[in-house]
Amino acid sequence: MDAITVVPLGIIHTPFTILTGMPIQSVAARGVAGWIELDPVYADGLRDLDGFEYLILIYQLHQAGAGRLTVTPFLDDQPHGVFATRSPRRPNALGLSVVRLVAIQGTRLDIEDVDMLDGTPLLDIKPYVPIFDVRATERIGWFAGKVAQVYQARSDDRFT
Amino acid sequence: MDAITVVPLGIIHTPFTILTGMPIQSVAARGVAGWIELDPVYADGLRDLDGFEYLILIYQLHQAGAGRLTVTPFLDDQPHGVFATRSPRRPNALGLSVVRLVAIQGTRLDIEDVDMLDGTPLLDIKPYVPIFDVRATERIGWFAGKVAQVYQARSDDRFT
Repeated sequence: MDAITVVPLGIIHTPFTILTGMPIQSVAARGVAGWIELDPVYADGLRDLDGFEYLILIYQLHQAGAGRLTVTPFLDDQPHGVFATRSPRRPNALGLSVVRLVAIQGTRLDIEDVDMLDGTPLLDIKPYVPIFDVRATERIGWFAGKVAQVYQARSDDRFT
Repeated sequence: MDAITVVPLGIIHTPFTILTGMPIQSVAARGVAGWIELDPVYADGLRDLDGFEYLILIYQLHQAGAGRLTVTPFLDDQPHGVFATRSPRRPNALGLSVVRLVAIQGTRLDIEDVDMLDGTPLLDIKPYVPIFDVRATERIGWFAGKVAQVYQARSDDRFT
């Protein structure tokens, strides 16, 4: 199958310049402020975005090492298939975070709950809409019994 | 900024061979069966995925036309900035759906709630974990008062 090319639409700025110590999910980064520097050519795409509280960001995990198929994630001491984890070291280095939109000024978006590195290339912004995006489930595989650790767990450099 | 290359990890098979009549969100496709044909080279990445009820799929909106910055979405008769919509016709044609995992047999994943075209190139699979992925908000911009139409609305060919 042919490769697919995407282009960075802007850059996500965060307080995290190294992986060590970074929150591993945006829920564990509540209130941590960052901002998106959108390329001005995309300015018209932001119209009406200010009505949303949360945004879904898709971005490049630009500091992740080459994709692995088996990883030992931050929240467990056992290896799992990479698609059963949120590890950044994936066959395609695509990251996904739900962040809180604070303000938009021109093509600068002030956001909170950032859990990615400073300088992360942004690939898409979608509005978070609960009726589309929320699912109720207790079937969360190996995360069961471990997921509450997300608030304490921090990244290290294992996936670089 | 440099372009980024991703590769299809497999193909998503669905009943939808044309855009016209397709559900516009996976919540409006409950029980609609499809399957993922993962490239066998990624088989080891599926380990332990069978413990999850829902998967997040990132995929290429391969039949979407060139990206637009302003679109009139299916659920409204007014134009909005593309980043304030879930329109497939985006600067980067990246789609996002939460689907239900039914069964895994080798590198075939039987899924439900499919809202994408047959033959869609799959770019990533992530496990859906409510503590990471659920946000409660009523600030849903222009969707307010329109979002319940998602169950009736169907795609047409406006974004090809």
